[in-house]
Amino acid sequence: MKVAIVGTGNMGTGLGRQFSAAGHEVIVGSRDLERARTKAEEIGAAGHGTYADAIAQADAFLLAVNWWNIDEVLPQLGKVDGKILIDCTNPYTDDTYSTPADLGGSSAAEEIQRRLPAARVVKAWNHVYAQIVNSSPDFGGAPASVLLASDDTEAKEAVAGLARDAGYDPVDAGPLWSAYNVEKVAGVMITIAYVVGAGTDQALKIVPR
Amino acid sequence: MKVAIVGTGNMGTGLGRQFSAAGHEVIVGSRDLERARTKAEEIGAAGHGTYADAIAQADAFLLAVNWWNIDEVLPQLGKVDGKILIDCTNPYTDDTYSTPADLGGSSAAEEIQRRLPAARVVKAWNHVYAQIVNSSPDFGGAPASVLLASDDTEAKEAVAGLARDAGYDPVDAGPLWSAYNVEKVAGVMITIAYVVGAGTDQALKIVPR
Repeated sequence: MKVAIVGTGNMGTGLGRQFSAAGHEVIVGSRDLERARTKAEEIGAAGHGTYADAIAQADAFLLAVNWWNIDEVLPQLGKVDGKILIDCTNPYTDDTYSTPADLGGSSAAEEIQRRLPAARVVKAWNHVYAQIVNSSPDFGGAPASVLLASDDTEAKEAVAGLARDAGYDPVDAGPLWSAYNVEKVAGVMITIAYVVGAGTDQALKIVPR
Repeated sequence: MKVAIVGTGNMGTGLGRQFSAAGHEVIVGSRDLERARTKAEEIGAAGHGTYADAIAQADAFLLAVNWWNIDEVLPQLGKVDGKILIDCTNPYTDDTYSTPADLGGSSAAEEIQRRLPAARVVKAWNHVYAQIVNSSPDFGGAPASVLLASDDTEAKEAVAGLARDAGYDPVDAGPLWSAYNVEKVAGVMITIAYVVGAGTDQALKIVPR
């Protein structure tokens, strides 16, 4: 799959590296072309460009930007019609991740889908620590789970395949409205890591009997 | 520990049986004394009584009633001062578990704590399927996790011990405000089981590296 990475922070570069290592063609997008080039080289990506250039070359793109920059980023994505949008954002107001953004009962994923109706939004990886996407999803032989929420079954299956290729265990968590709850799972993980202080070297897993 | 069970539904009887099997003294509370007696016998409990009688004999009690009956149940609990209140409720409006109760940004656990300020509320087991509490928390040698949220550290530790004794892996999920997110985890699990249709023979686990 050709996957554009929108954002060169920890989540974007980590997942870009894991997708690339799994044999997918990754194109790194950044507002800073020099940064895009450097990061692409660093993670073994096939190419780089602006957000819009990267997306134009890809079947899917990972939206890995901070929620508080979303209004600035969305208009820079260019044509997203029919593209799979993998949304790993979490709606917080700033980088202390202590104040959830007020979305009036909606979720980041649903808001993004509303603003980009022609994109095929799949919520994924939002509850997975950056530490994991920058190391390995393997936990003693068991892969970390990735909860997937989308109204587009085919897009959800494509992202499930991508997750599996990268060593994760994809879990169908239902329609896009389920992203509301899936985003709160990230809240639990953030609380465990930083409020309780248990750190980020642990993963959520849905285990069958 | 002496643990009263408030409610004789699937969660109450299942956890009562597991606590009892782990060597704790369980007292089954029901509004229907004959039902309390029958269930107590069925699960190997040490005693039974009304909600208030059961709680009066115990150090801790499991509040295992449906959220839509909460207004009716709370006034029947009697004196709860200093007692550990294990809250496994999920705020839904009815037994289809499709419509979350509107708590205006609060959680069931915080609402219960507000109404019973002298109780020591610990959120726990709300995201664990009744199927698991009525069979075993063991998943191929790995215990199902139980997320715990409370402002009372000592009470949280006591419930963690109870969970460990019953074969679960207790995970400190932070202060009581974290119950807001922990309750949404139940939403994810309900969606996976009943909307996606993956069933209930699976568990959430927080796995360390």
